[in-house]
Amino acid sequence: MPFEFPRLTRRGLIATGSAGLLTAAAGPSLAMPGPSPVDTGSVQGGRVTFPNWRGEADRPSAPPPAPLPPSERVGFAIVGLGRLSLEELLPAFGECKRARPVALVSGSPEKAALVAAQHGIKPSSVYSYADFDRIAENPEVRVVYVVLPNGLHREYVLRAAKAGKHVMCEKPMANNSAEAREMTAACDAAGVKLMIAYRCQYEPNNREVIRLVRSGAMGAPRFIEATNTQTMGTGDQWRFRKALAGGGALPDIGLYCLNTARAILGEEPVEVFARVFNPDGDPRYREVEETVSFMLRFPSGTIANCATSYGAHESKDLRVRLEKGWINLENAFAYEGQRLRVAHREGKNEAVETIRLSQENQFALEIDHMASCVAQNRTPHTPGQEGVQDHLLMEALYKSAETGAPVALAPTPARDATRGPAPDQS
Amino acid sequence: MPFEFPRLTRRGLIATGSAGLLTAAAGPSLAMPGPSPVDTGSVQGGRVTFPNWRGEADRPSAPPPAPLPPSERVGFAIVGLGRLSLEELLPAFGECKRARPVALVSGSPEKAALVAAQHGIKPSSVYSYADFDRIAENPEVRVVYVVLPNGLHREYVLRAAKAGKHVMCEKPMANNSAEAREMTAACDAAGVKLMIAYRCQYEPNNREVIRLVRSGAMGAPRFIEATNTQTMGTGDQWRFRKALAGGGALPDIGLYCLNTARAILGEEPVEVFARVFNPDGDPRYREVEETVSFMLRFPSGTIANCATSYGAHESKDLRVRLEKGWINLENAFAYEGQRLRVAHREGKNEAVETIRLSQENQFALEIDHMASCVAQNRTPHTPGQEGVQDHLLMEALYKSAETGAPVALAPTPARDATRGPAPDQS
Amino acid sequence: MPFEFPRLTRRGLIATGSAGLLTAAAGPSLAMPGPSPVDTGSVQGGRVTFPNWRGEADRPSAPPPAPLPPSERVGFAIVGLGRLSLEELLPAFGECKRARPVALVSGSPEKAALVAAQHGIKPSSVYSYADFDRIAENPEVRVVYVVLPNGLHREYVLRAAKAGKHVMCEKPMANNSAEAREMTAACDAAGVKLMIAYRCQYEPNNREVIRLVRSGAMGAPRFIEATNTQTMGTGDQWRFRKALAGGGALPDIGLYCLNTARAILGEEPVEVFARVFNPDGDPRYREVEETVSFMLRFPSGTIANCATSYGAHESKDLRVRLEKGWINLENAFAYEGQRLRVAHREGKNEAVETIRLSQENQFALEIDHMASCVAQNRTPHTPGQEGVQDHLLMEALYKSAETGAPVALAPTPARDATRGPAPDQS
Amino acid sequence: MPFEFPRLTRRGLIATGSAGLLTAAAGPSLAMPGPSPVDTGSVQGGRVTFPNWRGEADRPSAPPPAPLPPSERVGFAIVGLGRLSLEELLPAFGECKRARPVALVSGSPEKAALVAAQHGIKPSSVYSYADFDRIAENPEVRVVYVVLPNGLHREYVLRAAKAGKHVMCEKPMANNSAEAREMTAACDAAGVKLMIAYRCQYEPNNREVIRLVRSGAMGAPRFIEATNTQTMGTGDQWRFRKALAGGGALPDIGLYCLNTARAILGEEPVEVFARVFNPDGDPRYREVEETVSFMLRFPSGTIANCATSYGAHESKDLRVRLEKGWINLENAFAYEGQRLRVAHREGKNEAVETIRLSQENQFALEIDHMASCVAQNRTPHTPGQEGVQDHLLMEALYKSAETGAPVALAPTPARDATRGPAPDQS
Repeated sequence: MPFEFPRLTRRGLIATGSAGLLTAAAGPSLAMPGPSPVDTGSVQGGRVTFPNWRGEADRPSAPPPAPLPPSERVGFAIVGLGRLSLEELLPAFGECKRARPVALVSGSPEKAALVAAQHGIKPSSVYSYADFDRIAENPEVRVVYVVLPNGLHREYVLRAAKAGKHVMCEKPMANNSAEAREMTAACDAAGVKLMIAYRCQYEPNNREVIRLVRSGAMGAPRFIEATNTQTMGTGDQWRFRKALAGGGALPDIGLYCLNTARAILGEEPVEVFARVFNPDGDPRYREVEETVSFMLRFPSGTIANCATSYGAHESKDLRVRLEKGWINLENAFAYEGQRLRVAHREGKNEAVETIRLSQENQFALEIDHMASCVAQNRTPHTPGQEGVQDHLLMEALYKSAETGAPVALAPTPARDATRGPAPDQS
Repeated sequence: MPFEFPRLTRRGLIATGSAGLLTAAAGPSLAMPGPSPVDTGSVQGGRVTFPNWRGEADRPSAPPPAPLPPSERVGFAIVGLGRLSLEELLPAFGECKRARPVALVSGSPEKAALVAAQHGIKPSSVYSYADFDRIAENPEVRVVYVVLPNGLHREYVLRAAKAGKHVMCEKPMANNSAEAREMTAACDAAGVKLMIAYRCQYEPNNREVIRLVRSGAMGAPRFIEATNTQTMGTGDQWRFRKALAGGGALPDIGLYCLNTARAILGEEPVEVFARVFNPDGDPRYREVEETVSFMLRFPSGTIANCATSYGAHESKDLRVRLEKGWINLENAFAYEGQRLRVAHREGKNEAVETIRLSQENQFALEIDHMASCVAQNRTPHTPGQEGVQDHLLMEALYKSAETGAPVALAPTPARDATRGPAPDQS
Repeated sequence: MPFEFPRLTRRGLIATGSAGLLTAAAGPSLAMPGPSPVDTGSVQGGRVTFPNWRGEADRPSAPPPAPLPPSERVGFAIVGLGRLSLEELLPAFGECKRARPVALVSGSPEKAALVAAQHGIKPSSVYSYADFDRIAENPEVRVVYVVLPNGLHREYVLRAAKAGKHVMCEKPMANNSAEAREMTAACDAAGVKLMIAYRCQYEPNNREVIRLVRSGAMGAPRFIEATNTQTMGTGDQWRFRKALAGGGALPDIGLYCLNTARAILGEEPVEVFARVFNPDGDPRYREVEETVSFMLRFPSGTIANCATSYGAHESKDLRVRLEKGWINLENAFAYEGQRLRVAHREGKNEAVETIRLSQENQFALEIDHMASCVAQNRTPHTPGQEGVQDHLLMEALYKSAETGAPVALAPTPARDATRGPAPDQS
Repeated sequence: MPFEFPRLTRRGLIATGSAGLLTAAAGPSLAMPGPSPVDTGSVQGGRVTFPNWRGEADRPSAPPPAPLPPSERVGFAIVGLGRLSLEELLPAFGECKRARPVALVSGSPEKAALVAAQHGIKPSSVYSYADFDRIAENPEVRVVYVVLPNGLHREYVLRAAKAGKHVMCEKPMANNSAEAREMTAACDAAGVKLMIAYRCQYEPNNREVIRLVRSGAMGAPRFIEATNTQTMGTGDQWRFRKALAGGGALPDIGLYCLNTARAILGEEPVEVFARVFNPDGDPRYREVEETVSFMLRFPSGTIANCATSYGAHESKDLRVRLEKGWINLENAFAYEGQRLRVAHREGKNEAVETIRLSQENQFALEIDHMASCVAQNRTPHTPGQEGVQDHLLMEALYKSAETGAPVALAPTPARDATRGPAPDQS
């Protein structure tokens, strides 16, 4: 008696098969040859699947998500309960299929207790920064996700590795490449995985841009243009403190321009040039920069022009100019609102296609990626090396800005040398 | 010792306040006058709040979500594990703040067991259709959400009310107005709330359209144009069975055109006219209709032209033509992808504004609304009466299509007579 | 001495071939094997042609226009110097290739003299309305273009035919179908051509919509949705006078919805339904209507929902919903600003293509079409019959609005029965 | 007898006032108090004006154009009958109000004769390059418009000045700054005006961008991003010959990025940096460059990132990132298809306004501007100095590309020092 969904009987009644429970829908005969018209899906390989109910003219609907049971998901400890954790990351766990939050680390017991309660985390799994090392004893925690100000990343990654936990670390990875290398080495030595949270490399529209460019169908890319700007509030934020932030707009948001250009091409720049601008007399920019314009030259000839600022209205766009078309991703680096357009000649006309992908939470995708890597013992797509390389390049950019001259960089032999396998988003 | 977030010390060191734990970021003095530069938010009234970190030129970020602890959320039983439940509703609970799924009702024990495990629902809270009435004994279940084929709505709403549970019922409410009235009466008699799941009335862009029109700033609306079309697959789906679906494209998707026109205006039509089209020889359309075009005339003079079809590429758009501008909501009735544009004169030019709201999961919003109504003993915004009225209007539309003549309807005195208070989406 | 364009010599000098005139650009050798690098085009069949200078990735540029010498163009007399003549038609002649304005007819000698001077029209070719019949004696005038208030179309078309001139008449053709038939008969009897100025049938984006739908590539059309609204100023305009305008928004602007739906399908409706709305107490709408909503049902099953109003912000859009995609033409019925979008499934995604055609002046295209028909003795694409049919349909729509019931119409056997050959826009 | 437009009589008849000519529109009385309902406009100051017939909600229509009588327009000689002349410039004269083509200069008598006939130019006003200097004797020619390959600009501007004619010269002005200065000096010495045909500075959307930025309402601009790319056909075009073209993509199309950035800000860069790329082994790029990426730093801190290429699909976009918003002009540098969008915060939302201006032919606007300057003895908005400055900057850019280092430039004291008064486009 494996199945008892309500179904149509020969007399038009709807009944549950096992119990013969009658329904009210008596009426003219609705004899159904073959299977029940009530679509109930089937269970195969631990997943529910449904036949495609749409016509050929419309997108097929994706299979229903198959989240792991909570008890089988990889447990994460969130270190730092600032905006990103509360506004994006903890909500994103609600959309994860393979990860769940099991511990919090915060300096505010009151806040931590409230947030733990909101997310069903045990009070005993809430730690202070002083307590943090005790996390080693918590078997539910398999990954420590460091969401602190940049200047604190190194310390907490090192402590997490020492505790024997895998580590996910917000970008920028650290304050500089020396710290970044130390972090990578420490995780390697401890035998734990390290992933840098470059969310855009997991966001589906950004991935589609990478796929389109690499497919070669549009010819070689001549230019990448990436812009990441926003405006900032008052100066009493840690982002204006060099010791905590490592720099200004460049490491915070310009990093996405840099990282995305590299990810699209799979190459590393052989020359960089940068110019920094700070508005006169604005006390917020005593320690860190407001605005950076920079150019990256890649060995195959593509040039990336990038612009980042804390002093311009929010604009987070990406454009690629190829031989046979262009690609424009509005809100490329934003948390949401991506809008992908692709232009090409169409006979005598010019066509610009807006391509609408299913919306997915990029934070949930990257967290689930880390959970999969842990569960399946794979290297993350954006491991520590990816972060080290960005720090080396940012240092070259700052040097260029200081000296007023471009900075040459040694060519790297392999493509995608700093990346693990691409995330599987099926 | 209320607070111990890492902060800058006078000597530029970063330390946790309580334990004096030293960090590695030694360097030049970063003495901070006044409060710590590390933004930690504060806890007020059970919520965490942060100061606005953005500049005036950019949208302020919303306050972080304040989900209720899982144990305090309203428990829902999901009746029916078809596509909508698995693809949209159960995932949406991951984004809810006030509701959680606590029970499942399904005809397939295998599927139900799998889904229950995926969502952390106890095996003992999984019911068969025959078993369903035992749900009365489950105190965790406060709301029964009926997600069955339309023709089964009546039966399960009645059984849920009899079990003393509040009820949320998918749209269309039933197969006809007689069933709908019976359901409303049964819930009233049982003292339980009944909400019809008109998700678009909870979707923020649709709500913004309602707000814009009702504000009067754009003058009176002359026309509402609403289109809801998609293509359908093979004929072995319950949607082609009249006893199960109640009708074809009209009750399934055209209903959103009808319901939205009413919700925008707050009025009820005084005349309707409809034409039905079925393609020759398509066996899918023996019992239900493929295509309906219909016009609604409202007492204030606004006319709504609506079009729905199972035989046209997906298109789910809404347009309002007012005296001083027009509003266009692309993908108005889709699960995602809403794009709101508002046109108006701007001096010598015509301006079309694309307005980007924060994305929110409309399923989560409607489920949370029902949870709030239950917790606070309020009437849902879209109670049973809202569904009854749509059935009366659909019956008038079918009658018009059959007779080939418009059907007049008695005017209704009050505005928004079928709706409870607007949802609070703060 | 057939050719003497400056060209590169073997020593890098630039010279004119015939005269050996040296230039200043002496320098390193630029020996050119084969033809001169200076692209000069060639003359073939009375046209200049150039080789394609663009790469394959970009749209080829169109061949340069080949206007007829002014003396060989067909001469037009413009009857009526209102806004349309001065703002659109006379300027459009500047973009015509086969037509030129050679006479004016106006009630204001001062205005006519000024306008004639502005456009290089002889003072002796300016006529008053009383004088108009003398135009018969002016051999330069081959076409009389009637741009008067609608209620005067009949009289002046009849007088033009009597004068032995071909006639182009603004839409709506007349005040009613009886007048329209009289006009067609008079032109037939006089052996002159009659074209109704349905400019949208000559506008390239509208033509592309017709082509796309008729190609069948997107399947059958289920719905056409056409909207033409604008707001009107004070009441002292002839458009509010029924004797002069024939009606309100319907014949003036709603006509484009009606005519375009017919032109797309090539069919004639078998049923129409309409509702009229006039705002209470607005003195402008004592004689003519402000707002009409109407539905057209075509024999193949397509339904057109149309909306027109003098009381809604300007909106002139066209949408077609087909089985495999949709087409949206923003500003379809406007003088400029057309924006064509076509949606379809693209694998797992939805794609919306914006297709950019070269901009062309639709007034110039329709005037040149009439000039070609006269020069080549062909029937215009939109002859008098096209206008008669629209008047028959508008009368059915007004009857429907008055009786409150749909009006059935006899089916017509042939497709495109009221149209001449499609315009050649190469 | 000043007026005799058909009008309504007291008995509903339509008559011409002077002659009492009866019309057919007899019917119920339509007595009109006051003025005739037939809108006829009035003549004031040599212009026809109409009352606004639209409602307040819609854009007012512009006054009808008031072209000068042909005999009063400024006569232009077109030197060179390549694509630009035939496809754009000669057609544009059909839309001019103050200019007309009166002479042609070509190396192909056959082509010249055909084109002259097409445009109504006297055979006696057709010149060969050898003959060109005889143009001095043609009083109809007041302006010589040089549309030759760049390397020939200098020679023909000098010869035109020597002939005592005002000169309009296509961009780039010359092959280098030395030539450009020689041309400016020659025109000054001859007492003739020199205008460089920077059409974008006359195009209304570009002008609106300039106005928006300079208004200050959106705060200071941080970045200008300008891209001008297209793909090129086979190598037998003069554009690949340095002696004829002066360079590759930079002077041909990249010039618009450079010139527009300067025109928006009214400042001159104090530092430039450039990188050139040529695809390996492409014989087209032996003498001129395919691709240039360049950065301009302006004294107020704004940075312009510019990209130009002959090897990327057509893309001609402009973006400005300001403190309080961004501006995006698609197809900024194209002949048509401009699409202006402006983004800003709107309360809690982000708004992106698409602003639709009336379409105008930018070629006609610039030609009319020159005609006005000649008629009114004013300095053109883009005189020779504007072209000299661009050549100086392009030389600095080439130097930067060669040396691999940025090039510093002396600051210039005055704003808009190289420009004449802004064009009046009313």
